[in-house]
Parts: sequence; C-alpha cells; structure tokens
Amino acid sequence: MKVNGENFRSIWRDKSSQEVKIIDQRYLPHSLNVIKLVSLNDYCVAISDMKVRGAPLIGVTAAFAIAESMKKDPSDKGLQITCNLLSKTRPTAVNLFWALNLFKDKLSKITGNRRAEEAHKLANSLAEEDIQKNRSIGQEGLRILSELANKKNHKVVNVLTHCNAGWLATVDWGTALAPIFRANREGISIHVWVDETRPRNQGGLTAWELANEDIDHTLVVDNCGGHLMQRGLVDLVIVGSDRTTSAGDVCNKIGTYLKALAAKENDIPFYAALPSSTIDWNIQNGLNDIPIEDRSSEEIDYINGLDSDGVLKTIRLYPEEIKSFNPAFDVTPSKFITGIITEKGIFNPNEKTLRKAFDKL
Amino acid sequence: MKVNGENFRSIWRDKSSQEVKIIDQRYLPHSLNVIKLVSLNDYCVAISDMKVRGAPLIGVTAAFAIAESMKKDPSDKGLQITCNLLSKTRPTAVNLFWALNLFKDKLSKITGNRRAEEAHKLANSLAEEDIQKNRSIGQEGLRILSELANKKNHKVVNVLTHCNAGWLATVDWGTALAPIFRANREGISIHVWVDETRPRNQGGLTAWELANEDIDHTLVVDNCGGHLMQRGLVDLVIVGSDRTTSAGDVCNKIGTYLKALAAKENDIPFYAALPSSTIDWNIQNGLNDIPIEDRSSEEIDYINGLDSDGVLKTIRLYPEEIKSFNPAFDVTPSKFITGIITEKGIFNPNEKTLRKAFDKL
Repeated sequence: MKVNGENFRSIWRDKSSQEVKIIDQRYLPHSLNVIKLVSLNDYCVAISDMKVRGAPLIGVTAAFAIAESMKKDPSDKGLQITCNLLSKTRPTAVNLFWALNLFKDKLSKITGNRRAEEAHKLANSLAEEDIQKNRSIGQEGLRILSELANKKNHKVVNVLTHCNAGWLATVDWGTALAPIFRANREGISIHVWVDETRPRNQGGLTAWELANEDIDHTLVVDNCGGHLMQRGLVDLVIVGSDRTTSAGDVCNKIGTYLKALAAKENDIPFYAALPSSTIDWNIQNGLNDIPIEDRSSEEIDYINGLDSDGVLKTIRLYPEEIKSFNPAFDVTPSKFITGIITEKGIFNPNEKTLRKAFDKL
Repeated sequence: MKVNGENFRSIWRDKSSQEVKIIDQRYLPHSLNVIKLVSLNDYCVAISDMKVRGAPLIGVTAAFAIAESMKKDPSDKGLQITCNLLSKTRPTAVNLFWALNLFKDKLSKITGNRRAEEAHKLANSLAEEDIQKNRSIGQEGLRILSELANKKNHKVVNVLTHCNAGWLATVDWGTALAPIFRANREGISIHVWVDETRPRNQGGLTAWELANEDIDHTLVVDNCGGHLMQRGLVDLVIVGSDRTTSAGDVCNKIGTYLKALAAKENDIPFYAALPSSTIDWNIQNGLNDIPIEDRSSEEIDYINGLDSDGVLKTIRLYPEEIKSFNPAFDVTPSKFITGIITEKGIFNPNEKTLRKAFDKL
C-alpha cells in the first residue's frame, strides 16, 4: 500500500544489501522508522516488543527469522533453538505456531546448506502467499461493501474497525482493511470509524494507513462504537482475527467482543476477515481453548506521544500505586459473527461450513 | 471521604476565609491541587473545563456560583445573566438545569440583600442535601453488595464501574461508589474493576478515591470489561448517571452502554446509582430526547501525564491530520438496567414505578 504516494510493505528483503527490513511500528503514526533485523534476538524482540504486530506479519517475520538463522547454523539443534525462542515471543497469534510448524516439518527433511536455501525460499514464498491471500480477502470483502453501497444508493458506507488489521498487520493489503482498500480503489465512497484501541492505540496505525490511501476516516475512543451504532452511524463492522476456532469463534484484540455485542443488538453486520492460516483446526471453543496473553501493565500505565517540541516522549498516566491488568485479546463467540471473510470466500461461522470450505473434514 | 487519612469534600466554604474552594480534578490522580473560585468566570470555567465534573457536583458548583454572584449583584438582571452564563457550561448534566431552575424560582420571589442571603443558604443546603442523598444511596446499595457477599460465602465481591461516580463527582460519598465505600466500612470484601474511561481517563480519579479508602481495585482499559464478564470475573456493575429519563433510560459517560450490553449477555446485574435530581421527568425516551454533548477532539488527541522528572506534561497522541470525534455520553436503554439505586430505595427502571416512588404521577 501507499506511504506518501510510494508503495511499501511491512517487511521486505532489501534488493541490493539483501538485508531484511521492517517498519518499526512503535513510532507510527508519528514517524516512519525503517530498521533492519540481523540477529535472532533482533527478530524475537521485534515480535515481543511489537515493532511488528498482527498475526499474519508475526508469522512471516518468524519465517524470515528462521531463514536468517539457518544461514548461520543449519543444524537440527540450530533449528530447534530458533523455533523454541520464537515460540516464546507471543502466545496467542496462531500464525506464529503455524509458521514454526511448517518450517520444522519442511526443513527436518533436508540437511546442510540446502536447508538454509530452502528456508530462504520458504520465507519468501510465505510473504508472497500472504499478499496473495490478503488481496483475495479484499476481493471477497469488496462484494459486501459493493452491496451496501448499492443498498444505500451510493451514499457513503460507514465501516467501523477495531485495532489495526491493515497492511501493517500483514505483509501488504491487510485483512479487515483489505476490502476497504479495494473498494476505495473501485470508487466506492467509504468512511471508516477507527477505534483508538487502548492500550497500544493501534487505531493510530489504521488512521495512518487510511490517510495514506486517501480514505475518509474518523478516530474515536473505544467507548464510542456502541453510541455510533445506536444512532445508525455504522453500516458494517469488519475486524481481523489472531486465532479462529474451527467453529468460527474469533479471538482478536481486546474490546472486539464489546463491538460484536453492540453490532448484534443494533442489527449491524459484523465480519471477521482473516487468512485461513489463522484458523486453528484443533480447537472448537474459543473461550475454553485459546490462551489469552496478559501483557505488561506498563502498556496501560505509560503512553507515547509528541511533546510541544515535536519530540516523542513517554509519560506516566497513573501513579505507581494504581495496579492495572492488561489482557491483550478477547474471544467473540461465533453467534455474534455474520460471516468470515477468507481468501477462499465468505463463510458462515460454523464448523461444518468452515471444514468443508478448507478440506478439513 | 478520606484523602491521606483526612476527611475531604470536593467543594467547600473555607471556615475562616469564607472562600469557596474546590479540588482541581484535572491534576488528579497525580497531585491534589486545591484552588479557590472567586469570579463568576472562575465558576463557569471550572465547570466547562472540568476542574469539577460529575452531574451532582456540577449542580452544587452552580449553586455556589449563584450565591457568590448575588453578593455582588442581587438584581433581577444579575440573576438572569448569572444563570444564562452557567447554563452554557455543560449541556447534558440535568442537575445543572435543575439547580438553576430551583434558584431562579426561589430567588425571583425575594429582592435585595435578602436575595443574597437566601442564595447563600440555599447553596449550603443543596450541598448538605447532596451529601445526605448520597449517603442514602450508599445505604440502599449496600443491600445489593451484602446479598452478593452472602451468596458468595463472603468471598471477594467483584464490582465493575465506569468513569468516576465517586465522591469527586458529588460533594461527598458519590453515587455509584457510595455503596462500595459503605460496604467496605461494613467489612464486606470488595474488589473494583475500574474502567480507564477514555478520553479523559476518569478511572484514575476512581482508583485514587478507592486507594485513599483502602479498597482493593484494578484499573483496566475500556476494552476489557466484556472479557472480564465473559470469564466470570465480575459479579456486579454499578455506574452513575448524568441524566435519567422518567422511563429509566440512563445517559452516562460514553461507553456505559457497551458495558450494559456485556452485563446483559453474561447475566450480570447492572445498576445505575443516582440522586433523584438526576431524573428528568419531562422526558421518557433517552435516545430521542437527551442532547449528547460533543466535546473538543483535543480531549482525544492530547493527554496529560508525568514525565521522567515527575512533571505534569501534555503530549499529542495523534498527528494533526487524524480527525477525531468526541461525544461525551451515551444512552443505556432501561431494558439493560437491573435497577436504579436512589436515595429513596432501589427501583425497577420503568415509568410507573419511578413516578410512583417520587410522587410524579
């Protein structure tokens, strides 16, 4: 997608230096900081400190990490240590484990230098595959937006989204935002309500992406969505997913569940957009079976922003005595979800439909 | 209630100097700044800039403003100008208009110096009445907490609250927090989940009040409550109200509605605690009839906190290009409310019951 009119991805291999580079997302929406990842530790910290975030991008970053690691030590032990360290960075995003298992499976059958070569190819193809899948998600989701635009006689379609499931959460295009980017390029009038998404305010990333693609949007606090839906100001909700069960329960950024409840109450369609790699076929009940990452309370207690000189500063919002609790995700049971937008089509969130669609019967 | 072990109110007349003083709540929870209010402009700015906030305290502050104003100019014109200016400070809180109408009504029957004297008395009695009413709300709400504690075999009762409806929102005791303060003093084990309440983070005020009364509490982002309720970690929700319709619809801080939806879905009792002065007997349908205050988007875009030197600083969270929208309240229809805790008892949120209880048939 575009940044200041130029095409960008969230992770890429520099053509001349062959270095792997990412956008350090902690500085957005204030400034675009590109950094390179070299050591395995660089990759692990990039994931755990959320320089990169979003389930699909975490998976691809892990893939690049293994590829780089295999160049240095392609032994079985090297592969094992690499995967072990990466598996500890973020516990909820299933794409991470999906990528690790894929690499373990494929690379265990090869040895020596060919292993490094294969890992390199696999990482590149995973990145390309992510882009293709997200483009397809955009194409599928376009149908929903297009129908809504027709129904509204081509008046502006108001979409609400939570967190950032844009191209910054993937390699390119994004998941929840892919249909919006696509529809905008097709000339459909769209306005996006962007949830701020405390505590890490990823709404700022979403607004930054939308601004760079010239899509009208308004940032609101997370408390606001119910009020907007009650007043008829939202036509559609689209969110991403960090892990989806075989029965269609969606585990996404904390607060998603509240928006799903409000959408249901106000008869507003609520979609989750996700690549099928986000579906965990081993689990059915999201509330019982998905571990929820409790992150540091410092993410609540401190916040970054620009001071009056335009310098990025960290301030403390609450005195030390105030204890806080920071679960990063919640589960939206499938009964609140209108449909799941995937690279293969839009499906009802139920076990039978999903298993059939993805040959997991 | 206590601050560092000392009894405090949110507004008071200094016994020796006779000056009216308030806690400038914009500096909490970081520091306790006491300021005096002298000119009518001081009072208007204190209300509109939210140095004082909370529907009951706004009403009492307006009362003190009229009393001070009448000392300087007790003419009909003086009374009219004073009430006009005060009426423009905050549009949603009904207690403000209730207090203004009460003063206009009572003072129009008196002239000259006696008017100033009467205004002074009336303001003092309004403040005392507020305290009495809130103490009664605490006493009534105690029954709910006490029953829950019995039902749980005296294990900790987990209460979730949104915004600040504590003593800082009134003269003393508070509304939603009054039952909690009372129950704590009665030895009931309580833990409070405190919603941060963006954009102004009044959760910090609630946490500060609870800490000063030695009540266990945890601050969470506004996105978190649904997840907590889903997991059985909330036994009860209590919120305040800025305006309540005769049919029991509650207009409270933006985000209240989302918590009410989650409470309903998870079979958790959801109460609004309010003095009957918050009930607007002229309106029935909250969604149609209550004007919602849209506040400045700067409240979203900027935030205050302590820098690494412990100095209160303002930083910008979002670049200027990002547009934001900041409605301050939402409406929770009565069907989501288990009961309304008032100074006269706990009532079902319906027109007949409320009118009967308050002789408004």
